[in-house]
Amino acid sequence: MEVTAPEVLNSPLVVPTKTMMGPGPSNLSDRVRLALSHPILGHLHPECLKIMDDIKEGVKYVFQTRNPATFCISASGHAGMEASLTNIIEDGDVVLIGSTGLWGHRAADMARRAGGDVRLLEVSPGEVVTSDELRRYMKVHKPSVFFMCHGDSSTGVLQPIHEFGEICHSNNCLFVVDTVASLGGAEFLMDQWQVDVVYTGSQKVLGAPPGITPISFSRRAVERVENRNSKVKVYNYDLMLIGDYWNCFGRPRV
Amino acid sequence: MEVTAPEVLNSPLVVPTKTMMGPGPSNLSDRVRLALSHPILGHLHPECLKIMDDIKEGVKYVFQTRNPATFCISASGHAGMEASLTNIIEDGDVVLIGSTGLWGHRAADMARRAGGDVRLLEVSPGEVVTSDELRRYMKVHKPSVFFMCHGDSSTGVLQPIHEFGEICHSNNCLFVVDTVASLGGAEFLMDQWQVDVVYTGSQKVLGAPPGITPISFSRRAVERVENRNSKVKVYNYDLMLIGDYWNCFGRPRV
Repeated sequence: MEVTAPEVLNSPLVVPTKTMMGPGPSNLSDRVRLALSHPILGHLHPECLKIMDDIKEGVKYVFQTRNPATFCISASGHAGMEASLTNIIEDGDVVLIGSTGLWGHRAADMARRAGGDVRLLEVSPGEVVTSDELRRYMKVHKPSVFFMCHGDSSTGVLQPIHEFGEICHSNNCLFVVDTVASLGGAEFLMDQWQVDVVYTGSQKVLGAPPGITPISFSRRAVERVENRNSKVKVYNYDLMLIGDYWNCFGRPRV
Repeated sequence: MEVTAPEVLNSPLVVPTKTMMGPGPSNLSDRVRLALSHPILGHLHPECLKIMDDIKEGVKYVFQTRNPATFCISASGHAGMEASLTNIIEDGDVVLIGSTGLWGHRAADMARRAGGDVRLLEVSPGEVVTSDELRRYMKVHKPSVFFMCHGDSSTGVLQPIHEFGEICHSNNCLFVVDTVASLGGAEFLMDQWQVDVVYTGSQKVLGAPPGITPISFSRRAVERVENRNSKVKVYNYDLMLIGDYWNCFGRPRV
């Protein structure tokens, strides 16, 4: 063959142990680390589906929600951000992004790619968005989606969000929260705080490997997706397809 | 808290050993299975970047290519299909999909979501697309992208594709190939066959776990992406962003 096998394939894989104290990734407990070397199951084996059902219940617990549309995406936390936004945004929808640092800008980038008309509610580094500011922006911009990062690892800000769900809903707006760096380290109550879409990272406070992203959609968010005029722009993030595989809607899995 | 921890969290995880003889997922060798319980590295640790560099060389070998834009996506094979299409399709582009079964229709669905104007070149189950048919469809439809599945697990077809690259290029069209079920089981020579984008599944013939998707873009495909008039619709699949992280273009990693 023209392209020969690289020499490095003849050497064993060496992975050193690092002590990781940042917002993520974090070190795994031995119990979690060794669980990764279990055998592979087929994606429709009953034993695999049972594990998925158990995972759903665990995710509901960590998000403190009873939403049936609660599951995991087989990709990184960034996929959670993009799946949250692309499912509930259609071309021309006004999307308000609360920004306390890097992650608001990342969400704005994704929301624009999904077709959103993005408006930024940006505060200085270290500051938080206040309820009064949010009410003012709601009146001026009339967004259909509001995004906020709960724990912004780029500025160290923990954003108080417990009043934001009510403000959004009294303005006919869905409330999306990024808890990638915060979940498990700071209180988060999805149902009580009226959050419509939340996702987190597995490899941060939760202490699991990267590549699996817990996510949950409220009844209100599911209805928004059900009533779309256009298809979700990304097949792999389509709530209705993933939700069926995770048996969230009581329909056949495939 | 309102939502209590599920009882199942008190039980150990049980994963039975299955013998899997389908087109995938397949059983792991012990060497591969145990490699999964290595410690976690940070995504910018030099040791992690070195492993990524080594992976790139291995992926070039299995695809038989010298393309610098060769790497892996941290998601399933479906993400490889969607990343391939969404990077090289803009709104209104004519996309020709060769279909020998289920996977052509899946690609058509994704291409439409990416904004493509899809035309199908469909054959009966068990049949293959011929070079003459492809030439005829090229003349009629003048597509800018042609997709073909190499090994279609839904019909058992191995599609001969070694002439298709030349036919595409003499019609100013990019050639995308799905090798999810075939790579490692059937000959595939990316550079010699003039393939522009290829992806495969880790959990099929290659015998690795799911969730990592080898992919490669030719110089011609990279130029198409560089000359887009609009942003790629999916941040997570944007070739320029992922390619920089994998150090494919000689620019800073982040």
